[in-house]
Amino acid sequence: MLCQKQQQQFRCIALNASALLLYSHKNKPLPVEHSVLGGFSNDYSLAQQQRRNLYTSKFRMAPTSEENKSKPIGLVAIDETRRFMTDCFLKSKTSPENSKAMADLLAEADYRGHFSHGMNRLEMYINDLHKNSTDGMCQPEILNETPATAWVDGKNGLGAVVGNFCMDIAIKKAKQVGVGVVAAKRSNHYGIAGWYTMRAMKEGLIGLSGTNTSPLMTPSRSLEPALGTNPISFAAPANNGDSFVLDMATTAVAVGKIEIQRRKGEKIPLGWAYDEQGNMTTDANLAFTSGCLAPLGGNELTSGYKGYGLGAMVEILCGILSGSLYSNKVRKWTHVGSDAEADLGQFFIAIDPNCFAPGFTDRQTDMNNILRNLKPVDPSKPVLVAGDPEREHMEKVDKEGGVRYTPNQIKTCEELAKRLNIPPLKFNS
Amino acid sequence: MLCQKQQQQFRCIALNASALLLYSHKNKPLPVEHSVLGGFSNDYSLAQQQRRNLYTSKFRMAPTSEENKSKPIGLVAIDETRRFMTDCFLKSKTSPENSKAMADLLAEADYRGHFSHGMNRLEMYINDLHKNSTDGMCQPEILNETPATAWVDGKNGLGAVVGNFCMDIAIKKAKQVGVGVVAAKRSNHYGIAGWYTMRAMKEGLIGLSGTNTSPLMTPSRSLEPALGTNPISFAAPANNGDSFVLDMATTAVAVGKIEIQRRKGEKIPLGWAYDEQGNMTTDANLAFTSGCLAPLGGNELTSGYKGYGLGAMVEILCGILSGSLYSNKVRKWTHVGSDAEADLGQFFIAIDPNCFAPGFTDRQTDMNNILRNLKPVDPSKPVLVAGDPEREHMEKVDKEGGVRYTPNQIKTCEELAKRLNIPPLKFNS
Repeated sequence: MLCQKQQQQFRCIALNASALLLYSHKNKPLPVEHSVLGGFSNDYSLAQQQRRNLYTSKFRMAPTSEENKSKPIGLVAIDETRRFMTDCFLKSKTSPENSKAMADLLAEADYRGHFSHGMNRLEMYINDLHKNSTDGMCQPEILNETPATAWVDGKNGLGAVVGNFCMDIAIKKAKQVGVGVVAAKRSNHYGIAGWYTMRAMKEGLIGLSGTNTSPLMTPSRSLEPALGTNPISFAAPANNGDSFVLDMATTAVAVGKIEIQRRKGEKIPLGWAYDEQGNMTTDANLAFTSGCLAPLGGNELTSGYKGYGLGAMVEILCGILSGSLYSNKVRKWTHVGSDAEADLGQFFIAIDPNCFAPGFTDRQTDMNNILRNLKPVDPSKPVLVAGDPEREHMEKVDKEGGVRYTPNQIKTCEELAKRLNIPPLKFNS
Repeated sequence: MLCQKQQQQFRCIALNASALLLYSHKNKPLPVEHSVLGGFSNDYSLAQQQRRNLYTSKFRMAPTSEENKSKPIGLVAIDETRRFMTDCFLKSKTSPENSKAMADLLAEADYRGHFSHGMNRLEMYINDLHKNSTDGMCQPEILNETPATAWVDGKNGLGAVVGNFCMDIAIKKAKQVGVGVVAAKRSNHYGIAGWYTMRAMKEGLIGLSGTNTSPLMTPSRSLEPALGTNPISFAAPANNGDSFVLDMATTAVAVGKIEIQRRKGEKIPLGWAYDEQGNMTTDANLAFTSGCLAPLGGNELTSGYKGYGLGAMVEILCGILSGSLYSNKVRKWTHVGSDAEADLGQFFIAIDPNCFAPGFTDRQTDMNNILRNLKPVDPSKPVLVAGDPEREHMEKVDKEGGVRYTPNQIKTCEELAKRLNIPPLKFNS
């Protein structure tokens, strides 16, 4: 099993800028819990400097000692997290089925340790529903279909509703003809991309999915952003519950990682972001002001054009294929107060490995073990496989009996409970 | 149109380590022409330092002034390149059809400016055929098939033979049911991955392909390589001959880029490779000795674990899915003298955009134009779309009437002509 330090160092996958949207609605700086999430470094020495106290706590999202003094922290069972969020959606023009879909998605993110994509986003979704910029009641619709493909109109439904609908079609087709490819237009933020690929994986299939997002990535040589963080997820099953679950933005880092450096007055590494003149910068303030994230790979010298190419590939499979908005036509992440629909594009692919060489999961298990048993540079930090840190987090949650939220998150939940007249979040301890 | 400098700066896509194999057979240092290819930097200032004279020549592969003095350079028509290579294969236990397939593949690489993957590799393939480590006569075979998938045994055939066979099946299935997914085992080096995705693109489809290769990429935290440069290509059609063609290794750079820095006694940027102790190094000698390439993204701080994840994804779609060799079971690039078959795995996907939102190529054209017209940091260096540098190179070849090879390459061809008793390479000028 991986130690706490090890899992923490490997868990910045799929932290994209969308969590920031929540706070752009409020037009105020990112709260501490978001900064912690976005700022989680995979380099242990830097991470130590960033937030030493975090590494001594049991949970990644555990509050700082200062926060601990101000308010005792409660442990919330995942079922209760799910119950609370379901109640919130039910009181927000959302059907029971759709409420459950969203609560399941967001609770899973918290369970896996991707707090930026879990309860942290609840208020944003609720606000969008109340101002009718998302339709909580609707069901997506298939516009065109072949034995192996489907084109879907998300009808501005909630992300999980559209996403589950699409991946379930892909799964069904993969089971029938070996592969299913589905593209959806008129969707909304769909949470962790891994939710959908794991949905396929749980059926013994390979899952692949991605979404376009608000423009934040600045293509190589450009002064302005033109693509989103455009995450891609790929999941493959192995034996005995083992698996490979990649879930990553195609930008070098999330905006939140820059924000935490800024708040601490520290520099950012070269390769994360550009200043407003288009130079790669180590100044967190300049990087945050520009809103210009570098693609994976950083500058051209270290092959940032490849990350740019990958982000564009995701954009093509999402926006161009589905007919949704694309590139810099997607609304900006600073769309405070806007009630226009997001019209995001997403793609979902399921492949049945049984149509190929028999013994897929045996080989996947073997490859995972080869990778995990490689001689590490530092014996205390073994080589990991995508999805290992999340597995470790879930084991901890199971052992502890729940998830610890920050005081800020708990306060938001209290306010939501009052506002929506639902039972407040209950704590185990 | 793009200027020469612009196209040169953007053309390090898909330069993987396999060209190095050619020279590992000979157990001697990389020759100049390979170093030039591998060492092509995307950072103009560094590239200028590396090989200033290259930027003043008309072709990327033009020799240094020193080489020019030693031997006049000839221009070779692409048709003659193709004729010469076909003749070489015909004299090397290869059927006429298979000879043509390989010549077409390699000539296309030179035409597009990816000289590392063109004639540069001819001798390696010829040697492999003569020592029977590759079967030049055989045809691949479908082992299992559904309306949308196929599992193929490449039967140790030549890369282009297996690759064309597989992508043609994927194309046929995509036209019938919207998508085709094909995985091949027992294949060999298949040249530029873009050859196969463009094959789909020319049929109006989206193409996606990748291959595993000899272990050179060192996973985050590992002391030893365990994945190949594992390139991935994605091609999508636009209007009037425009397109998007991504073709990239999932490592930060090719081995050749390190080799050229080493030969010049210059440092490499942090993020390209590790030394033997597993530290990211700027010492080109240490990097070359270790043979440990960094994944795209470099170290963990700049998200190298994402490049590692992408390389593993390609490995799963190739080796794990097809049942070929995988991870560090693939033979090393230092397999001098080995006559064991490579047993590489490859995947091929074709998707028919007509099954989704109508007007795909209109939107792709629009997106390409959005990207190309973004305000650039440097007005003399416009933002590019994947495939732009290659298009520019092909226009130059058409205008000039052929390709210029280096003296070393020409010498190799002369030797091959004598050895195989075929008409030597003819020059236009």
